Amino acid sequence: MIIIWKPDRSSSQTLYHQIADEIERRISYGEFPPGSLLPSERKLAEQLGVNRSTVILAYEELRALGIIESRTGSGTRVCKNKWEATPKHTPNWHRYVEGGQFLPNLSYLRRIREALQKDSSLIDFASGELSSQLSPGKEISTQMKENPFTEYLGYDNPQGFTPLREELVSYLSRYRNVQTTDSSILITSGSQQSLYLITQCLLAPGDAVAIEDPSYCYSLPMFQSAGLRLFRLPVSNNGMNPEDIRALYKKHRIKMIFINPTFQNPTGVCLDPTRRMQLLDVASELGLPIVEDDPFSLTSYDGKPPLPLKSLDQLGSVLYIGSFSKIAASGLRVGWMVAPHSVVERLADARQQMDFGLSVVPQKIAAQFLHSDNFLPHLERLRMHLQYRRDLLVEALQKELPNELSFSIPQGGLHLWCKINLDVNDNQLFEEALRRGVVFVPGSVYGSDSGYVRFTFARPKEEEITLGVAKFADALKAVLL
Amino acid sequence: MIIIWKPDRSSSQTLYHQIADEIERRISYGEFPPGSLLPSERKLAEQLGVNRSTVILAYEELRALGIIESRTGSGTRVCKNKWEATPKHTPNWHRYVEGGQFLPNLSYLRRIREALQKDSSLIDFASGELSSQLSPGKEISTQMKENPFTEYLGYDNPQGFTPLREELVSYLSRYRNVQTTDSSILITSGSQQSLYLITQCLLAPGDAVAIEDPSYCYSLPMFQSAGLRLFRLPVSNNGMNPEDIRALYKKHRIKMIFINPTFQNPTGVCLDPTRRMQLLDVASELGLPIVEDDPFSLTSYDGKPPLPLKSLDQLGSVLYIGSFSKIAASGLRVGWMVAPHSVVERLADARQQMDFGLSVVPQKIAAQFLHSDNFLPHLERLRMHLQYRRDLLVEALQKELPNELSFSIPQGGLHLWCKINLDVNDNQLFEEALRRGVVFVPGSVYGSDSGYVRFTFARPKEEEITLGVAKFADALKAVLL
Repeated sequence: MIIIWKPDRSSSQTLYHQIADEIERRISYGEFPPGSLLPSERKLAEQLGVNRSTVILAYEELRALGIIESRTGSGTRVCKNKWEATPKHTPNWHRYVEGGQFLPNLSYLRRIREALQKDSSLIDFASGELSSQLSPGKEISTQMKENPFTEYLGYDNPQGFTPLREELVSYLSRYRNVQTTDSSILITSGSQQSLYLITQCLLAPGDAVAIEDPSYCYSLPMFQSAGLRLFRLPVSNNGMNPEDIRALYKKHRIKMIFINPTFQNPTGVCLDPTRRMQLLDVASELGLPIVEDDPFSLTSYDGKPPLPLKSLDQLGSVLYIGSFSKIAASGLRVGWMVAPHSVVERLADARQQMDFGLSVVPQKIAAQFLHSDNFLPHLERLRMHLQYRRDLLVEALQKELPNELSFSIPQGGLHLWCKINLDVNDNQLFEEALRRGVVFVPGSVYGSDSGYVRFTFARPKEEEITLGVAKFADALKAVLL
Repeated sequence: MIIIWKPDRSSSQTLYHQIADEIERRISYGEFPPGSLLPSERKLAEQLGVNRSTVILAYEELRALGIIESRTGSGTRVCKNKWEATPKHTPNWHRYVEGGQFLPNLSYLRRIREALQKDSSLIDFASGELSSQLSPGKEISTQMKENPFTEYLGYDNPQGFTPLREELVSYLSRYRNVQTTDSSILITSGSQQSLYLITQCLLAPGDAVAIEDPSYCYSLPMFQSAGLRLFRLPVSNNGMNPEDIRALYKKHRIKMIFINPTFQNPTGVCLDPTRRMQLLDVASELGLPIVEDDPFSLTSYDGKPPLPLKSLDQLGSVLYIGSFSKIAASGLRVGWMVAPHSVVERLADARQQMDFGLSVVPQKIAAQFLHSDNFLPHLERLRMHLQYRRDLLVEALQKELPNELSFSIPQGGLHLWCKINLDVNDNQLFEEALRRGVVFVPGSVYGSDSGYVRFTFARPKEEEITLGVAKFADALKAVLL
């Protein structure tokens, strides 16, 4: 229950009466249908910022009115009594919610989201995005003011807003040495939707695919929801080993390779140039498509990221995915895929059925921003700040936990990947850090063993990084005791 | 192939050389990988606006260079020869494109889309949306200029932008007598995404569901892609018959009812008030959820639409879906669902994996527009114009085809549903109309027998409606000959 409502402390009505009234209102509006579970007294008290005893009184009031009922062990539920005289039933929503084929997000990710929603003062090393300090918010706001939106607001071209696709043709050529045409580009709701469309439309349940280990892909139950079998490509300091593909193909007939070769999420590693060529060779030898996810390359701190696989792809084996999320603003929800036209067409057609395409407004904003004189200065500023933040994080970790952690220093991207050199219970560490006001992503989310941590240094406020590390260090020391 | 490129007629280079160069460029960029099919000479000539002989010369040039090859009966393909010396292969994209589990859109819908993309002068009775004349484009443009976007452009709340959900609480109460709270609302990319999330997350393959006949749902392969079994609820002049639900439940154990009770798409019919109560009774007796799709009610020409099922839903059986698409602008891609919180939470979580949520920009625009003094005047103007357009269409149809067609005159919505009183081949009529510059949706798309037509009078320019009907009448007469 996300309660935005709070009781009014200046009101003459008691707090518990106000709370009882609000819950009754929400029940009557169908937010909690008959039979559904209400939050525990402890949890509700926390959300409303009141004492637990206040919630106990509110629940007692509602019980006395026959609106809710509590049973030991099964919590507090909305009464069905009111309707029991008639043979009418509310649908068993629980059964429906549990019954679909689409798997829920990992519990850590939901836990992180809930914690951040509830308490905006948390130091956020978890969300994989840019802070408002790093986003080109001002540039975009000015741009919108100076170029009022005058396009027809009808359904967009299924492949995405044409001026944006045209702008991306130059962008990809200039910044990534990828030569393409507007009809080979599909605009998507971030990289996420590109991956989703690929798993839904180009693969069938039971298909085997290869993904890096650790990898962002493990954090996406979408792969399991699509019924895919996942096989691992271990990532070392110079990336995955292309020879591993051959073995996986022989054993499991893998049908596709998912890879994030530049500043890999979560490790920050770059696949080295020789291995890039080897990977393309192996893939084309086996006729295997490669999905290249490339969201971070333009954050390269020295401004010289490695060329993407796509720029070396002579046979058209690579589906190339890029996005605005990690270099400008995740809230625009603008990503893209470069693929053979038959693939683009198929995916665009399916997407029409899922959401009827993206809004043209953010696409126009993205096109204008790419075209503007603000884009390159923004990128340069972003790189500088990311490097500065990385240094802050590294210094703080080396100072606070000189022997407890191991990590490589990334040369681009938003994340630092750490191994804890001591035996530690991931869950205890996570909860202890949360209690101290810091949140991060445990490595198990990316499929790694316990004892790994991903710190996103792009997301907290710059001035919070050192403090956040101190709090994390305290939490680690507390759980090691 | 969507060719935005056109040859330059003022260039000193011959047209066919320009075309050959452009195709070679596109092949080298991976738009057409080795082995893939190129457009036929006729089709390409049409798209580029050149003679077929010009394309024949261009293809000959490319064949001479060993870049493409043609075989009788299998069309023109990109050569594989260039790479045949090595054991390398392009992935068999054809196999991937055909292999996924998600079904393609109906061929009529794809045909319509292609035709409209190719020729913007077509009179469009097919696209189910408002023309730019009816959209509040100016209001939104002014609003954006006066209220520059200053929000943080990070990932949004998974349920959608909070100020929009708060605005919708008042909107739903004021205009639809639906009492709800912001935590019971999920913002989606139009009604389409609400339906998609329901079919993916609350139902499992093999589940049976009831849908109206004819119905918009038949136009959505998403139901089949999710493995659902569809059963029909025939729609008469006062809507579907709730007693039919009981029979379907006994026979097939249907698990959900999908219904568009107000100005139904495509028939324009309203479920009458007695049947609304009966439907709710039957559903609650069987514990069945109802999905109420309500995109058109505010277009009611007399300004007094029937109340939605949701406003009468005391047991929380109804998942209520609304949208901005048919009352303001489809290109904003803003829709909403009102549901018990457990359902909202489940769907929001799944959506995070599919596209990571909507852009905040169009959501803020929608919230501001709902809140503004422009919204109600816009609605009133919209209703007036829709009624005027409906009258234009009805008059023209009665004049041109007084005996050939039967229809009821709708009191709201964007569509007119016609029965052709003569034997006619749907496909011939469609193609003949297209040749004459008019496009509509054949009724079979909505699951009806042949001989039905849906005219969307909201989409063409006002001044095109009468001419469009004349062209349609000519086409009908031509295929009856």
